[in-house]
Amino acid sequence: MQYFDFRSDTVTLPTDEMRHAMFDAVVGDDVYNDDPTVRALEEKSAQILGKEAALFVPSGTFGNQLAILTHTKRGDEVILGDACHILMHEVGAAAVISGVQLRQVSTINGSMPIKEIEKMIRTEDIHYPDTGLICIENAHSSGTVIKISEMKSIYEIAQKNHLPVHLDGARIFNAAQVLNVEVSELAKYADSIMFCLSKGLCAPIGSMLVGRKAFIDKARKNRKLMGGGLRQAGFLAAAGIVALDSMVPRLHEDHELAQYLAEKLTEIDGVDVLEDRLDINMVFCRIKLKINEDDFVKRLLMSGIKINGSENGEFRFVTNYWTPLKAVEQLVDNIKVIMEE
Amino acid sequence: MQYFDFRSDTVTLPTDEMRHAMFDAVVGDDVYNDDPTVRALEEKSAQILGKEAALFVPSGTFGNQLAILTHTKRGDEVILGDACHILMHEVGAAAVISGVQLRQVSTINGSMPIKEIEKMIRTEDIHYPDTGLICIENAHSSGTVIKISEMKSIYEIAQKNHLPVHLDGARIFNAAQVLNVEVSELAKYADSIMFCLSKGLCAPIGSMLVGRKAFIDKARKNRKLMGGGLRQAGFLAAAGIVALDSMVPRLHEDHELAQYLAEKLTEIDGVDVLEDRLDINMVFCRIKLKINEDDFVKRLLMSGIKINGSENGEFRFVTNYWTPLKAVEQLVDNIKVIMEE
Amino acid sequence: MQYFDFRSDTVTLPTDEMRHAMFDAVVGDDVYNDDPTVRALEEKSAQILGKEAALFVPSGTFGNQLAILTHTKRGDEVILGDACHILMHEVGAAAVISGVQLRQVSTINGSMPIKEIEKMIRTEDIHYPDTGLICIENAHSSGTVIKISEMKSIYEIAQKNHLPVHLDGARIFNAAQVLNVEVSELAKYADSIMFCLSKGLCAPIGSMLVGRKAFIDKARKNRKLMGGGLRQAGFLAAAGIVALDSMVPRLHEDHELAQYLAEKLTEIDGVDVLEDRLDINMVFCRIKLKINEDDFVKRLLMSGIKINGSENGEFRFVTNYWTPLKAVEQLVDNIKVIMEE
Amino acid sequence: MQYFDFRSDTVTLPTDEMRHAMFDAVVGDDVYNDDPTVRALEEKSAQILGKEAALFVPSGTFGNQLAILTHTKRGDEVILGDACHILMHEVGAAAVISGVQLRQVSTINGSMPIKEIEKMIRTEDIHYPDTGLICIENAHSSGTVIKISEMKSIYEIAQKNHLPVHLDGARIFNAAQVLNVEVSELAKYADSIMFCLSKGLCAPIGSMLVGRKAFIDKARKNRKLMGGGLRQAGFLAAAGIVALDSMVPRLHEDHELAQYLAEKLTEIDGVDVLEDRLDINMVFCRIKLKINEDDFVKRLLMSGIKINGSENGEFRFVTNYWTPLKAVEQLVDNIKVIMEE
Repeated sequence: MQYFDFRSDTVTLPTDEMRHAMFDAVVGDDVYNDDPTVRALEEKSAQILGKEAALFVPSGTFGNQLAILTHTKRGDEVILGDACHILMHEVGAAAVISGVQLRQVSTINGSMPIKEIEKMIRTEDIHYPDTGLICIENAHSSGTVIKISEMKSIYEIAQKNHLPVHLDGARIFNAAQVLNVEVSELAKYADSIMFCLSKGLCAPIGSMLVGRKAFIDKARKNRKLMGGGLRQAGFLAAAGIVALDSMVPRLHEDHELAQYLAEKLTEIDGVDVLEDRLDINMVFCRIKLKINEDDFVKRLLMSGIKINGSENGEFRFVTNYWTPLKAVEQLVDNIKVIMEE
Repeated sequence: MQYFDFRSDTVTLPTDEMRHAMFDAVVGDDVYNDDPTVRALEEKSAQILGKEAALFVPSGTFGNQLAILTHTKRGDEVILGDACHILMHEVGAAAVISGVQLRQVSTINGSMPIKEIEKMIRTEDIHYPDTGLICIENAHSSGTVIKISEMKSIYEIAQKNHLPVHLDGARIFNAAQVLNVEVSELAKYADSIMFCLSKGLCAPIGSMLVGRKAFIDKARKNRKLMGGGLRQAGFLAAAGIVALDSMVPRLHEDHELAQYLAEKLTEIDGVDVLEDRLDINMVFCRIKLKINEDDFVKRLLMSGIKINGSENGEFRFVTNYWTPLKAVEQLVDNIKVIMEE
Repeated sequence: MQYFDFRSDTVTLPTDEMRHAMFDAVVGDDVYNDDPTVRALEEKSAQILGKEAALFVPSGTFGNQLAILTHTKRGDEVILGDACHILMHEVGAAAVISGVQLRQVSTINGSMPIKEIEKMIRTEDIHYPDTGLICIENAHSSGTVIKISEMKSIYEIAQKNHLPVHLDGARIFNAAQVLNVEVSELAKYADSIMFCLSKGLCAPIGSMLVGRKAFIDKARKNRKLMGGGLRQAGFLAAAGIVALDSMVPRLHEDHELAQYLAEKLTEIDGVDVLEDRLDINMVFCRIKLKINEDDFVKRLLMSGIKINGSENGEFRFVTNYWTPLKAVEQLVDNIKVIMEE
Repeated sequence: MQYFDFRSDTVTLPTDEMRHAMFDAVVGDDVYNDDPTVRALEEKSAQILGKEAALFVPSGTFGNQLAILTHTKRGDEVILGDACHILMHEVGAAAVISGVQLRQVSTINGSMPIKEIEKMIRTEDIHYPDTGLICIENAHSSGTVIKISEMKSIYEIAQKNHLPVHLDGARIFNAAQVLNVEVSELAKYADSIMFCLSKGLCAPIGSMLVGRKAFIDKARKNRKLMGGGLRQAGFLAAAGIVALDSMVPRLHEDHELAQYLAEKLTEIDGVDVLEDRLDINMVFCRIKLKINEDDFVKRLLMSGIKINGSENGEFRFVTNYWTPLKAVEQLVDNIKVIMEE
């Protein structure tokens, strides 16, 4: 049975072009810096983001944690949003690997109040850790895109306080598409950026950490410490290059499909779409189910549709390159039927 | 010159009775468990708090961090208030020593919304750390006392989720006095409690960690790891015993003095006392200074009064056993003079 | 120019069969446990090693560190050899990620004296960390293979003391070939085993962590914490399956080629081959160079041969699937010429 | 019953002079740097050791771990002896608190072969942690004193490699007495030194960390992180000052008594004194007991003598200020009786 998968854009399969690129990839031992395809991807990534250097890493979580390890010293405090991926979905890694304290700004839809950040930056006091880093996330995993002006304000405060800014840009290309700017325009307001080749870009594995050369050099060694020094990684890099070339220009299609899905869901009684979080390829909604949630998920599964259970009372439906219009319609129809029973 | 010191109750000198008790103390090597005075203090502390066992530790920060180290495994998440001492004033130690992630509940005057705590407790998911501990603080260093009903609710949620609760009770005797209950009534709603013999109780050095026997046994070894295994600690314990016997019953005097100070300050134009945080021996206020803050602090110092600079725009004045009424009056008069210039 | 590469077997390129298997791989999101090829590789690996379960990890270092993180609690002591990879070549990761203390047994050619291990196991004492794990390495990166009887003895001591044993089996198939046993015969004497699909087996990326089901379940979550949760990892798994099927049976060829290389090198004046470390596909030797070492390495490079500089005065030449006989002869001839100048 | 205690010199009680000094101590809040007696002790300690600054810490373990935390960054490698206190008797703290890897030089009676140290210093390589610190111990807890020439050689190598040296000088005054030099002569060859006021010097609690001003300033903040910021610590400092003034000049008496004890023990059949480890106030010996060891310890206890059980087959008897000659004779006589039964 063929399934339509709305659980996440992490489920995206690579395109045929990617498979061919992988098949033909010229590779080498990247720990020895000998893989030309990895090097090409790293150069390409740095160039696209307007930074000096880039590093291939096995995952988005790896890239974020590597950035924290490389920017901070143990005991530093890292300021970030209270709903961000680093805090919520990375298994508490920052305390384990980097020994840093995460200080949480209350956010609304991923947006971090500048005043709050400013207040949280530590002064010198024997009771205080040093503030070592500010992390932002754009697009935010709550489905929203942060304004450039907000990123700029945060970056200016950071600069004033001699603090680095790391951008969790797992979906930075989605954000740039929505903001209608080059991705380098967003990268300007961060010292390091992690972005994913998987997710909406459909590469099978891998993310990039981008920043200044000295930072990336240090991160390269820390990547080895974290077990992310890969050998013939050029296979993955080959797919990544295709992803950057061919998938970035079409991300708007995923966004439009999500918009369409949202519109259709709104028409169903008992489904409450969170309209203020409809920026990218995700639709969040609350559903007043008359049946058990597990049964709901199973019913959809039996009809060929995969969704996740709700988190904090919210369902999330994610569109991607492999989501045809008819999948969206099938999802909507099935929910409608279940709700009307 | 004799100074009156309103900076903190940590500045309290021991009483003569304490000095004599220290002089006469029978001591032994406490790493070998050979110090009878330490043992007596540990038994007394456990008994007063209604728990099985207790452990002498060098400081309040040490006791809190030891509790975290002993309750959790690396990578756990600890739920606590966003203005608590463990987060704000312990130099980021929990990430360094215990490798745990601090998850912050938004609080108002130290009060932690139960619903928020409940929402923060992690379910099982490959992206989530385990919730390992809930920390509360009472009296809270913002000057407030948390209601027993709140502590009870938190404890019930923790129990339901098989989570331990640690109480940072640096000033638990102040809290019990205000709530007009035995301190054991508060300790009921926590699995471990740290309280200080210094601060309002005037002992020179030391805090107690109290809890179940198995927990304290484990903490004893972890105390050694953290470098807190002391030798002839009976000297400090001797003062601690006097502190518990003689200073606890008079804490209400510090509270009354703080109330009086607050009343007097309120009468001064430009001084805004934070009335909702007047529970214990601390007065918080905002002062619309016409002069530079450093000059303000220096002017008071020259007149024989020590205060700290403001934190987040708030001045804090703390009363203690060594604060005579005339010190309060002198503080008020001096501020009045400065404000009226 | 085509190079013959004697630096390491990590430089091995995948075979055409692997490229085809990758091209054809059926993949899914492995974080969701949806990748059938990864699952097949994990089952196959567990079965070959005679264990309950297995987990794909991005690298050998990752697998070793993940094993340590999963076996121990922070502060544990891990007993291992003083020349092993975990201590020498993993960037100090065990202290950073797991917070454990590495206790080093003096070894000769990777062999760990049983008596020494036994003496190092901690008893209960307030000054002592708990011994939490014993790590062995076979084949050892010094080029030697540890006898089964030694592994058995270590395992028995570990069992007696209720300690887990982790086997760094990056080259376990080389060891099994030399010992002329099934690899499961070696795996018997360890609770967890890491082995590499890259190196002599020629897969481009990836290693396996193998052990009991409960251990692997826990490791799966810790893998996410360490940033090693990959998405469509089936591409790498596909190559890994080919590696296990087709490359294991031919490892003896690499060993024979190394033996041959050693014989030839021995004939050169000034080259001292370390005969007692000639078990697998590595030849270690000391060379009395009349020229500068950098020049020596460069001279070989210009003639089409890559070698690493010496470590502790020893050169290492490694053979692999891609090393033709003529490469060995060219290496020997070139060294001879340089030595006779 | 009065006991004579040969277990350790950590059991030493303070003298009456110390008790009086404590009683009369002028104290203040040392976290605010307000305790004049602590400041006096810190200045005195720095001056005696010929260094810029000093810091009072709660214990020897605390001081060593604080030094490691302050000298290193997480992931560094620390070179030290394979029988030193930091490795053997500090509960694995360095990995937990500092996240550093301990690299162990094989030692004979505490002596560290210079060549081995030199070989262990890491070069730059992507697989290597940075060497961050060398730790030495003098007097060594095995009962020996390290020669100044050895300390000098280690220090020179460290300097050449831009590495700091920390000296665990828990019993540095014993070492200086044996070497017949000022203690500052030993301190010369270390960047930081921890020494104990307790042990042979008889103060009840506390050790000093000594070094450059910038190092001590950083350590002061790290002391707070580790929970060692004490309040009215002047009580302990007062005893420490007496210890430095009055106990240092008499340490030779403890050494002579240990020599005497060793001579007498040698005369007993079945007692094998380790003559090459007889430098300070400790006698190590192997005893061929005909009775159970526990019974042996109990028999001595019943006759008024406390000893520890053996460690690695060795008994240790420690003399101190409170050990009268008759205690030594009683110990010898009792062992003789037991051995001759």
